[in-house]
Amino acid sequence: MTLPLPQPAIEAIIGAGRRMDRRNWVPATAGNFSVRLPEGRVAVTRSGVHKGYLTPEAVMVVDLDGRPEDAALRPSAETLLHCGIYRRFAEAGAVLHGHSIANTVLSRRAGESLELAGYELLKAFPGLATHDASVALPVFDNDQDIARLQAAVEGRWAAMNVVPPGYLIRGHGVYVWARDMEAALARLEALEFMLECELLQGRIG
Amino acid sequence: MTLPLPQPAIEAIIGAGRRMDRRNWVPATAGNFSVRLPEGRVAVTRSGVHKGYLTPEAVMVVDLDGRPEDAALRPSAETLLHCGIYRRFAEAGAVLHGHSIANTVLSRRAGESLELAGYELLKAFPGLATHDASVALPVFDNDQDIARLQAAVEGRWAAMNVVPPGYLIRGHGVYVWARDMEAALARLEALEFMLECELLQGRIG
Amino acid sequence: MTLPLPQPAIEAIIGAGRRMDRRNWVPATAGNFSVRLPEGRVAVTRSGVHKGYLTPEAVMVVDLDGRPEDAALRPSAETLLHCGIYRRFAEAGAVLHGHSIANTVLSRRAGESLELAGYELLKAFPGLATHDASVALPVFDNDQDIARLQAAVEGRWAAMNVVPPGYLIRGHGVYVWARDMEAALARLEALEFMLECELLQGRIG
Amino acid sequence: MTLPLPQPAIEAIIGAGRRMDRRNWVPATAGNFSVRLPEGRVAVTRSGVHKGYLTPEAVMVVDLDGRPEDAALRPSAETLLHCGIYRRFAEAGAVLHGHSIANTVLSRRAGESLELAGYELLKAFPGLATHDASVALPVFDNDQDIARLQAAVEGRWAAMNVVPPGYLIRGHGVYVWARDMEAALARLEALEFMLECELLQGRIG
Repeated sequence: MTLPLPQPAIEAIIGAGRRMDRRNWVPATAGNFSVRLPEGRVAVTRSGVHKGYLTPEAVMVVDLDGRPEDAALRPSAETLLHCGIYRRFAEAGAVLHGHSIANTVLSRRAGESLELAGYELLKAFPGLATHDASVALPVFDNDQDIARLQAAVEGRWAAMNVVPPGYLIRGHGVYVWARDMEAALARLEALEFMLECELLQGRIG
Repeated sequence: MTLPLPQPAIEAIIGAGRRMDRRNWVPATAGNFSVRLPEGRVAVTRSGVHKGYLTPEAVMVVDLDGRPEDAALRPSAETLLHCGIYRRFAEAGAVLHGHSIANTVLSRRAGESLELAGYELLKAFPGLATHDASVALPVFDNDQDIARLQAAVEGRWAAMNVVPPGYLIRGHGVYVWARDMEAALARLEALEFMLECELLQGRIG
Repeated sequence: MTLPLPQPAIEAIIGAGRRMDRRNWVPATAGNFSVRLPEGRVAVTRSGVHKGYLTPEAVMVVDLDGRPEDAALRPSAETLLHCGIYRRFAEAGAVLHGHSIANTVLSRRAGESLELAGYELLKAFPGLATHDASVALPVFDNDQDIARLQAAVEGRWAAMNVVPPGYLIRGHGVYVWARDMEAALARLEALEFMLECELLQGRIG
Repeated sequence: MTLPLPQPAIEAIIGAGRRMDRRNWVPATAGNFSVRLPEGRVAVTRSGVHKGYLTPEAVMVVDLDGRPEDAALRPSAETLLHCGIYRRFAEAGAVLHGHSIANTVLSRRAGESLELAGYELLKAFPGLATHDASVALPVFDNDQDIARLQAAVEGRWAAMNVVPPGYLIRGHGVYVWARDMEAALARLEALEFMLECELLQGRIG
């Protein structure tokens, strides 16, 4: 017996795609989004569709290890990265992955992390009560072996005192998460805004 | 007994958010807008919501010192800056605060002011009948203590012969004001256009 | 007895404003548009309104010397430049004036003309059957005395063998014209596209 | 007796124009799109119209040599390039030609090809299972003689082991193709995204 896929989760995912497409963050079939459901379930976008024009049929359910409830459906290639976030952070309720020009260009140039400092919008990151603080986002080398990439992510997290709610994959895009979809979208907009400033400024940490 | 919040003020504020969001000037929950009401009241956006998708419930009323009429509601963090503008300039009927890529990058690089010269759009600033004139917009260091920031603003105004209807906060955005919301939006568009030109030109005053 | 203002002319002007606003070419109250009517009349936008949100009331009629049929209405400040184009070029049926970031930045840097070469889109300019040809657009210094500016324009035209259907005013924007509004919009889009390429290329003629 | 023009082909072409116009890839009357029909027929856009505002009347049928079924209609100037693609690649079901700022600026600077490497979005190109591979897109000199340009394209294809499903014409735009319109749009979005990254990165192959 399968539990239903709640309508609000479907709407949150479809709406996120529309908002991200307006900013050109989901070109081609890039990007994927998910929402945590009760009882260890995750609603996530299916593979191979344009995320700016999602339909309810493009949303499916996996467990916290990325296994589809309906074996006939294929989730987004990076579903394991979403699941890794939900397993590690109890407070994560929604995860967004997008490709922007800024995050692609900057992650290709960056070393192992990308530091952002002096922006009012840093307040969109938890624990930062002031713009004087800074955030160092981890940057990972791209890898088509998603399990190995997730292991690299977990290795880095294990070595950090405070894990910021986002990371970059080189030439591949950004991941952010928050308590719900609206908060995740706000965090993503804040991050992309700062990355675009960094890109125009021409001095990258 | 509380006075009502007039419908035109609500509509002006919601409409301003939509227009600013189209230009990407209110990322995440950034930005705030207000309209002066009769009898020392100010309609202003509430804190923590996305300004591109405002509802009537996201608009509230404060007095000229920023105190909410309904103590259960929290106004935008920078409400005191709006009130400072209304107290000082009798002709100010609407105030807009937005974050653009251009105003963020330029204010981070600028010294104590940012000068604009030689643009036809300078005519959007009062007292400038011609494009030959120039405007020097004050730039303030960002400060999470808004009362202290407002004191710095007032100190600078006191030392100026003519106060231009706008200023920048470093890494944090721009404030502009005008007699009503439509005029404030026109002034903001003119200012952001010139800042974007400056950014692309690569020579900042 | 006054002739009516034909509905198609009103719709062409309102539609042009919407299309130009989508590209951010009419910030604040900048820009103005006109359509030639029969019998020496010109439909033109009124002064001081946002051109992206025009209403039928924002369109008025002047004669070929810029005199309003209804003396109570004020046409756009640069109406004389429109009239100068209609007087000189019998084939001109519509005139567009817009401010883009690209035309503002490039006209501020340029000398007395701006040359475009090697673009397929040059075919949008008359007499150029191939992309190998080039166009040199006149660039004029800005002037708040519009009659004097129009005299400068006419002086330059008198010295040219072939007059291209467009010119730039330094820090102030572009004028283009064509047989009708649809053709004028196509010419403007082609021109702005090439100017944006020039801006990004960083080498301006 | 003429076969009908199927409604899905018309809708695919009109929809492609709207999506490309949102990204500013069809300025003026630039761009053209086609869909392969059964029995050696091709549905293609007519010449001289804005591709962002297509109507069903703006779509016509040609054979694989570009001859119109209705001799009264004129197809897009570059129809022969579309036909050349359909003749050579049995798997091509839709062809898109667009002008972007990025593809125009980069093709003007490039040599005989433009290489893209290290992007996750390279997976939108067939045969590339990983982001580690690279694609070298042919760049051709622009030519108003389309038959001669098509001969140059075929000459280059004949010398290649693997032909990527796209090429650039200098100062003139890009061509991409795929099995159907949705896949062609995804491939175009992926390509334009990578070109925009290259443009901002400032180091072009």
